[in-house]
Amino acid sequence: MSVTLLNVFVVPEASEAEFLRNWRETTAHFSKHPGFIETHLHRNTGVGNQSFRFINIATWESAEAWRSTHAEYTPGEYSVAGVQGHPAIFESVIDAYRQSSG
Amino acid sequence: MSVTLLNVFVVPEASEAEFLRNWRETTAHFSKHPGFIETHLHRNTGVGNQSFRFINIATWESAEAWRSTHAEYTPGEYSVAGVQGHPAIFESVIDAYRQSSG
Repeated sequence: MSVTLLNVFVVPEASEAEFLRNWRETTAHFSKHPGFIETHLHRNTGVGNQSFRFINIATWESAEAWRSTHAEYTPGEYSVAGVQGHPAIFESVIDAYRQSSG
Repeated sequence: MSVTLLNVFVVPEASEAEFLRNWRETTAHFSKHPGFIETHLHRNTGVGNQSFRFINIATWESAEAWRSTHAEYTPGEYSVAGVQGHPAIFESVIDAYRQSSG
């Protein structure tokens, strides 16, 4: 069963371009790695809380596949000034869908 | 076009049960609100960074629909001891999918 990797990023505005340049390099590398399925980097639109500029929502075949990738490759975005990442494996625990008001 | 609401939560272990009780109440309320589409509360599995215990990934019809809900209802989970939420509207900016290594 696949797993969900969520990574919450603090990125100062001045570092955004360099963060994205590094992100593209990391993604190009990871997308060829065994166990990678997909990744969707989300950017804060400015509506709501502004603590986190980017959040990545990714899917991997397993937590082990995700971890093993980092043993051989250090994503460059963590070296960009002021950038803090918080990557962890999450699982969906409560789901809810629109109810008809019938 | 729908929008993505991501909410990153700091939740002390001792507050988890109370957080979840409030979450279910909030979700029961919001799921009947115009503009709500779906919500998926994710829990940190313990693999990776442990800063954030829960992250909600929700879909609303618009940022306005999400904001108007909060004008009439204050989610109880924000009153739970030690809980910090960081809700904001995000948009997907870089997507990547598994590449065949062929």
